[in-house]
Amino acid sequence: MDALNTLKATLTRPGLLISDPQIVDMATTDFRGWYKGNAVGLARPRSVSEVQDVVRACRTAGCAIVAQGGNTSMCGGAVPAAGGPSLILSTLGLDKIRSVSASSWSLVAEAGCSIKGVQDAARSVGQHFGLDFGARDSATIGGAISTNAGGMNVVRYGNCRDQVLGLEVVLADGTLWNGLRSLRKDNSGFDIKQLFIGGEGTLGIIAAASLKLHPAETESRSALLAVQSLQSATDLADLAMELADGRLSAIELLPRMGVERVCQQILGSVPPIRLYREWYVLVRMAGQDDPSEKLEAIISRALERDWVSDAIIAQSSSQEAKLWLIRDSFSELHRYLGVSFRFDYSVPLGRIPKLYPELCEAIRKVEPHFLPFAFGHLGDGNLHFSACQPDAQDGAAFEAKRRLVEDEANRVVWSLGGSVSAEHGIGQLHRDELVQQKGDVEVNVLRRIKNTLNPSSLLNPHKTLPA
Amino acid sequence: MDALNTLKATLTRPGLLISDPQIVDMATTDFRGWYKGNAVGLARPRSVSEVQDVVRACRTAGCAIVAQGGNTSMCGGAVPAAGGPSLILSTLGLDKIRSVSASSWSLVAEAGCSIKGVQDAARSVGQHFGLDFGARDSATIGGAISTNAGGMNVVRYGNCRDQVLGLEVVLADGTLWNGLRSLRKDNSGFDIKQLFIGGEGTLGIIAAASLKLHPAETESRSALLAVQSLQSATDLADLAMELADGRLSAIELLPRMGVERVCQQILGSVPPIRLYREWYVLVRMAGQDDPSEKLEAIISRALERDWVSDAIIAQSSSQEAKLWLIRDSFSELHRYLGVSFRFDYSVPLGRIPKLYPELCEAIRKVEPHFLPFAFGHLGDGNLHFSACQPDAQDGAAFEAKRRLVEDEANRVVWSLGGSVSAEHGIGQLHRDELVQQKGDVEVNVLRRIKNTLNPSSLLNPHKTLPA
Repeated sequence: MDALNTLKATLTRPGLLISDPQIVDMATTDFRGWYKGNAVGLARPRSVSEVQDVVRACRTAGCAIVAQGGNTSMCGGAVPAAGGPSLILSTLGLDKIRSVSASSWSLVAEAGCSIKGVQDAARSVGQHFGLDFGARDSATIGGAISTNAGGMNVVRYGNCRDQVLGLEVVLADGTLWNGLRSLRKDNSGFDIKQLFIGGEGTLGIIAAASLKLHPAETESRSALLAVQSLQSATDLADLAMELADGRLSAIELLPRMGVERVCQQILGSVPPIRLYREWYVLVRMAGQDDPSEKLEAIISRALERDWVSDAIIAQSSSQEAKLWLIRDSFSELHRYLGVSFRFDYSVPLGRIPKLYPELCEAIRKVEPHFLPFAFGHLGDGNLHFSACQPDAQDGAAFEAKRRLVEDEANRVVWSLGGSVSAEHGIGQLHRDELVQQKGDVEVNVLRRIKNTLNPSSLLNPHKTLPA
Repeated sequence: MDALNTLKATLTRPGLLISDPQIVDMATTDFRGWYKGNAVGLARPRSVSEVQDVVRACRTAGCAIVAQGGNTSMCGGAVPAAGGPSLILSTLGLDKIRSVSASSWSLVAEAGCSIKGVQDAARSVGQHFGLDFGARDSATIGGAISTNAGGMNVVRYGNCRDQVLGLEVVLADGTLWNGLRSLRKDNSGFDIKQLFIGGEGTLGIIAAASLKLHPAETESRSALLAVQSLQSATDLADLAMELADGRLSAIELLPRMGVERVCQQILGSVPPIRLYREWYVLVRMAGQDDPSEKLEAIISRALERDWVSDAIIAQSSSQEAKLWLIRDSFSELHRYLGVSFRFDYSVPLGRIPKLYPELCEAIRKVEPHFLPFAFGHLGDGNLHFSACQPDAQDGAAFEAKRRLVEDEANRVVWSLGGSVSAEHGIGQLHRDELVQQKGDVEVNVLRRIKNTLNPSSLLNPHKTLPA
């Protein structure tokens, strides 16, 4: 309570400091209810100088600061971890699109703008923002940058990192760094904004970003394909990447079980394709011109080579939207799958056909009857893999095997040169796996950088780095 | 000599340590002869562990280490600056392509491989490396990464940073960091490789890199266009970026004077287009399919809008090569232009039509009769601007105005939100301009990062950061 009193004495603008227990309680729980932290309150600054005020007040009060956007972190990165007193710094009051410029192919958005808000701002000048994922309405651009979010369109536009031209960051001592440039080339010293991208709020607090825009995707076409095998899916992805001439927007791997159960249990619709194969691929091409001809050429080549045995090409934008709704509903499906251990793995391109069976085999050693549920981004080597409880088994009994399953699975990924976090970040979830994945040398460098920029661990403590 | 003796005692493999004065002299002079440093010798390690040996020996000897690839730095970044004893660490012995994998769309190259060598390795598996610039035969990939090199194709593939998937780096204490991953997504902690990219050898010594590959550009088509004005050139670039659907490989701005004099004085050829406009644009589209139709559509739209008044489309690959030879010869042209002050400016996209006349006006205040010579990358907002001595004036008299001209010109660039170094880096050339461009807060962060990773300034001292 001492900390709160100190903060109250400084942060006097009505609405800036909130200590209402219900609001604070919501903000200290992550959206899946996996992590529950404590906070003395929540600050909702409306300007960058108020962010600085909050940081300075927290320094005085000896209170940690956990920056939070839409609270959609998949790794507990945006809620306080155990430890001393914490304040949540919500960026949702920083919600302005400061400028949009078609001629510079860029816009400046404050940290609390939603991904959807940034997409709309780009659209308002006839351009396109290259980042998209399911939580687009609630996730903020500040949070997306802080975790270097990925999503569906990385195969075309790269990760969130690739969308960022400049940043405005409040540093751990309350100083403001104005790096809001919008240059496509700038080699004036090493690029410190890269540290805050993916820094998960441990190195500074992102207040605003200058973001790259792309040409609008005026024409798009999608197809759902039944593939012979995982290898065929990967071969198809290679072919599409090779032939699409930059117009491949997304190429997603879907398992039969997922398509079937999403249609049955969530959408209440008839599956749009015959469900007789193990794996399906959902592909989207888009650009200035109608990509139908190119998409059809890729599909016929894949049919000739026997990689694909069935194909549905959406004939209208509403049909296209329906196909993507299946994909968008995959996360929700977890609610019907009982206890599951979820992994966000990446491996080098081309290795998913090796990763998946090896994961299954390794996990079966621990639990022979587990149910695998995997989907992912073929163009990025990113597999979202869930080991779900066997239908006949008790959830608690399965849950007890979590550690064993995780160890077996991670070992497989590391043996293939992969990462335990493709796009979700580290947060609280993966911090203890870092040394095994990266080795002491790299973790030591991470720690030294962190100690340099956040020496008293004021910013988001107990995250990202091993304890 | 003490330092050299200490080094000799440790680096005993024949050929590893070279003290032949002629070799050392060459390596301590930059390729344009602007910078002349001193070194006690040159080490040419053939393996990563030898790089570690050199770093450790230099620590013992108290000798600074200047990493050098092809010695093509435009800013004196790769030759020793004044100060204590230095050793040149040439990476040219690290010349192996360790692996190329079409299925993972990546390759691993050692630091001393030339850009051309990397391009060829990509081609050997039917893929494409996205970095290209004039010095491709001599510049090394290690040097290109260390300066985050740009070049002609940034509009399509991004800067060198965007080509790097992983790095192997020898740190200042001689430790090896093996970060040679080839993942497209990896959010396991903040991304420290980003610091070494563009770090100019001041934070660590890059020994090898894992690099991203792209689909081969099997079909390409180029055109040279006469444009009405700088604004028309920029409008044309916007149109091409919008309509090319990702197939725009390069869009370069050329001044009439450059085309004329390169043809006349260097190539001895007839200009391929009527030279009656102030500005010309050389554009290249490439991809899997013949881009002619698309290129022609863009040109006709530009003709309709009166942006373009004349167009030559290359009808064969040899004609195409001839057009690009003109562009490639621009740097050489400087030899015929007397004393010149050369700038590598970037501004936000769309601002070159503002930058150029403002630069000319500002410089005319200092020297009314100077000759402007500017060319650049329209898709990146990158203008290579040279202020050349008036024909009638004495070179030394013009040279005396360098500081004044630079100050006036930089002021213009900064007022437009630009950078004094778009793609060449800082080296020795721009270190004293950093504070003005970036402000104290950013320079302070740069300095803290540098002190963390290179605490005793063993690696490339007196570079990149202000004195």
